[in-house]
Amino acid sequence: MSKTNGEKRIRVALLGCGVVGSAVARMLIESADDLRSRIGAPVELVGIAVRRLAKDRTDLPVPADLFTTDAAELVTRADIVVEVIGGIEPARSLLLSAMKHGASVVTANKALLAEDGPTLYAAADAAGVDLYFEAAVAGAIPILRPMRESLAGDDVRKVLGIVNGTTNFVLDKMDTTGAGFEETVAQAQALGYAEADPTADVEGFDAAAKAALLASLAFHTRVTGADVFREGISDVTAADIAAAKAMDCVVKLLAICERTTGADGIEGVSVRVHPAMIPRTHPLASVRDAYNAVFVEARAAGQLMFYGRGAGGDPTASAVLGDLVAIARHQVAGGRGPGESAYADLPILDVGQSLTRYHLSLDVEDRPGVLAQVAQAFADTDVSIETVRQHIRTNAGTGAKRANLVIVTHTATEAALAATVDALSETDCVAEVVSVMRVEGA
Amino acid sequence: MSKTNGEKRIRVALLGCGVVGSAVARMLIESADDLRSRIGAPVELVGIAVRRLAKDRTDLPVPADLFTTDAAELVTRADIVVEVIGGIEPARSLLLSAMKHGASVVTANKALLAEDGPTLYAAADAAGVDLYFEAAVAGAIPILRPMRESLAGDDVRKVLGIVNGTTNFVLDKMDTTGAGFEETVAQAQALGYAEADPTADVEGFDAAAKAALLASLAFHTRVTGADVFREGISDVTAADIAAAKAMDCVVKLLAICERTTGADGIEGVSVRVHPAMIPRTHPLASVRDAYNAVFVEARAAGQLMFYGRGAGGDPTASAVLGDLVAIARHQVAGGRGPGESAYADLPILDVGQSLTRYHLSLDVEDRPGVLAQVAQAFADTDVSIETVRQHIRTNAGTGAKRANLVIVTHTATEAALAATVDALSETDCVAEVVSVMRVEGA
Ligand SMILES: NC(=O)c1ccc[n+]([C@@H]2O[C@H](COP(=O)([O-])OP(=O)(O)OC[C@H]3O[C@@H](n4cnc5c(N)ncnc54)[C@H](OP(=O)(O)O)[C@@H]3O)[C@@H](O)[C@H]2O)c1
Ligand SMILES: NC(=O)c1ccc[n+]([C@@H]2O[C@H](COP(=O)([O-])OP(=O)(O)OC[C@H]3O[C@@H](n4cnc5c(N)ncnc54)[C@H](OP(=O)(O)O)[C@@H]3O)[C@@H](O)[C@H]2O)c1
Repeated sequence: MSKTNGEKRIRVALLGCGVVGSAVARMLIESADDLRSRIGAPVELVGIAVRRLAKDRTDLPVPADLFTTDAAELVTRADIVVEVIGGIEPARSLLLSAMKHGASVVTANKALLAEDGPTLYAAADAAGVDLYFEAAVAGAIPILRPMRESLAGDDVRKVLGIVNGTTNFVLDKMDTTGAGFEETVAQAQALGYAEADPTADVEGFDAAAKAALLASLAFHTRVTGADVFREGISDVTAADIAAAKAMDCVVKLLAICERTTGADGIEGVSVRVHPAMIPRTHPLASVRDAYNAVFVEARAAGQLMFYGRGAGGDPTASAVLGDLVAIARHQVAGGRGPGESAYADLPILDVGQSLTRYHLSLDVEDRPGVLAQVAQAFADTDVSIETVRQHIRTNAGTGAKRANLVIVTHTATEAALAATVDALSETDCVAEVVSVMRVEGA
Repeated sequence: MSKTNGEKRIRVALLGCGVVGSAVARMLIESADDLRSRIGAPVELVGIAVRRLAKDRTDLPVPADLFTTDAAELVTRADIVVEVIGGIEPARSLLLSAMKHGASVVTANKALLAEDGPTLYAAADAAGVDLYFEAAVAGAIPILRPMRESLAGDDVRKVLGIVNGTTNFVLDKMDTTGAGFEETVAQAQALGYAEADPTADVEGFDAAAKAALLASLAFHTRVTGADVFREGISDVTAADIAAAKAMDCVVKLLAICERTTGADGIEGVSVRVHPAMIPRTHPLASVRDAYNAVFVEARAAGQLMFYGRGAGGDPTASAVLGDLVAIARHQVAGGRGPGESAYADLPILDVGQSLTRYHLSLDVEDRPGVLAQVAQAFADTDVSIETVRQHIRTNAGTGAKRANLVIVTHTATEAALAATVDALSETDCVAEVVSVMRVEGA
């Protein structure tokens, strides 16, 4: 903190002034009086680093001379550095330099944290500063602070999150309109819910980064993006959505973090992102549009859910400002927030070990003995069947009959299920394994 | 903190060993290793104050010699005092003495906090210790920490909470079974969801204490239980529930904290607890059984919801332990949590000033001109009608016809609505104002 006329003030440097950064800047200026009262000292915005100095930003209530392209210099003269540039570099180097110069940092950068969080944590520890990143997961929803602090005396067993608004919007629209994937993504792009290149969202990379952060905090174990099994929603068809509907389920892209004992008896952590069917009665099923929600199961607390806006300038800025106030209070009154907690150091279980229920749709011949053959393929691969439903369809042209078998299994490992699918493909009465989808939240 | 053999340890004194206290004691013992890793120092349970020393507590993994009836002595030899006795005295004196002796405190005692929170805050400030009470509102649900910290950079506009499990259980059962109030309360008592004397829950006293705590944190303003307008659920009839159903609504007992401009143009805070109809599509409508949920609207964050178990030994103990870890981390690493924040000092608006929509059910004569007369009574008292629905009923015996008018108003003040009801009672075509209920969450 620096002093002017004997008054302490908290100098804030803002790196990036895009969707999130401009909302942060506006709130810092417009809420200055409240922030001062809540912190016990005034906050002063000392500079905003951008890429394009020439861009018109006159809509922001910020003096023009605060903008700079010299982010490296800016981070050396702040008490708190807020990074909302995104990407790995120069964000990482700037944050490391900021901490080395004694600043605490707030970042919304899940990609960087999931790739290289431990380096940042270590730098924060070495410098004795705070590293906060509530905005990196589920935007405005307070989920990281509850996980690291409110549940610090409890044992988190499972986290199920809808943490990507784009994919939730797409799946929700597919559910309500019956439309296909491509068509719905195009609509989401037109409405501004999906980017021109939607890969990071649609293929689950964004959700995987958030899953890694959630799992790290939940299980006191280092988890990086590379540890997360990831499957996106681009293979989800209108038929899958209809099949889910028939089971009174919806399809959601879930980030799943679970403390569990793998099939080989070893206790560890399973972290995965994939589309899954969940019952319509599950609290996550009613999360519509681009909303996010995180469902947590802890030993003593039981089931908790946190719901809200997962993205957007203002909601994300709300989370950034919350972190900024916490850090500023530390700088005024002393203390530091909790650092990295990785003492439990649990093994990351291979996805082949993780246990889930499955929904399979098979196209089979309509003749006696088929069900027995199919059941045998499941039995041979040690996967137990919970329910079977058979639909007979007659080909209008040929009059030939085919059957559609919908099978839901009891929990089985991914490895066993993969073996079942192989065995089914080699069973001569099975024309096609039409779809396989995991079922969660029972 | 004291040291044994050179090792720092955090001495914890537990006051009360009932539903919550016994769960806290068990978690402190069973999770000792995890707590030590998370805090950076071991936690030692140094004593448990109870009323009846003779009570059999051998099911707890606690040495018998830890129990004492001398709570006053116990609080003088602890670093953290956890109060789960309940009630005003001796809880207040014990907490004040604990803080005077340098201990930080955790309490689940909403009654005490809502009655005399400022005295406790002042004592914490004077002693430079922490006062935490996450468990006092909505049990296991992290709501106070998100409010004081995560939303510290935002402006909370409204809080709508289902914060009493007993009344939610009763209203939910009335909704699903169609049964009346008395009958359902008896069933809740039999199932252990309501106490033998259910007054504190059913008449809204418990919810009002929690509303006061929520409003204080949300609006940085002192609000006590006495400031809260309170109406319980004992007058809610099966007919009210059916009327709500007909409007695709459910009836919930809501704690409502609102920053608003009253009818007289003064900005202030409205805090009230009463049954209200909310649309079935509202996120709070699906909160079933004895679950709790708190819905928050903030300027930048938008709509947030927090959902989970609001009571029970383990869930409440989870919240207590979270606070305990936060305080213990401060004792190890320095720092203090945020204290009372009452700088905004907004006026508490009289309930007569608060604006709500209303649902009225009127029993009227069936003849031309009745609707005009009724509408005039609304117009005369400045309450604007949103919808009217008329049902004609024929008395099977006499063949006489009566009409039931269901009217939903636009927002109006309580004062204006009271005047409308008076005017209606004096309108000769109105036989009875059958029910009046507020409508929220539109
Ligand atoms: N958008 C959301 O809803 C959301 C939600 C949660 C988290 N986040 C995270 O927040 C971060 C920012 O997202 P955003 O949507 O605000 O991004 P954005 O709109 O693309 O803004 C990026 C900003 O960074 C500036 N910038 C880029 N490279 C720079 C460099 N080398 N030096 C200085 N400034 C540079 C840009 O400058 P110019 O203005 O000159 O181009 C721009 O102002 C990302 O990590 C993202 O994952 C975003
Ligand atoms: N129960 C819940 O689900 C819940 C949820 C949220 C918050 N809370 C709050 O938590 C607090 C405790 O609730 P609870 O349900 O655990 O109450 P409880 O079961 O009635 O337990 C009260 C405990 O306090 C002890 N006690 C009473 N008077 C005492 C005195 N003068 N000195 C020392 N010990 C005394 C009792 O001793 P004996 O065992 O010898 O009788 C008993 O162990 C209350 O403030 C309540 O509002 C409870």
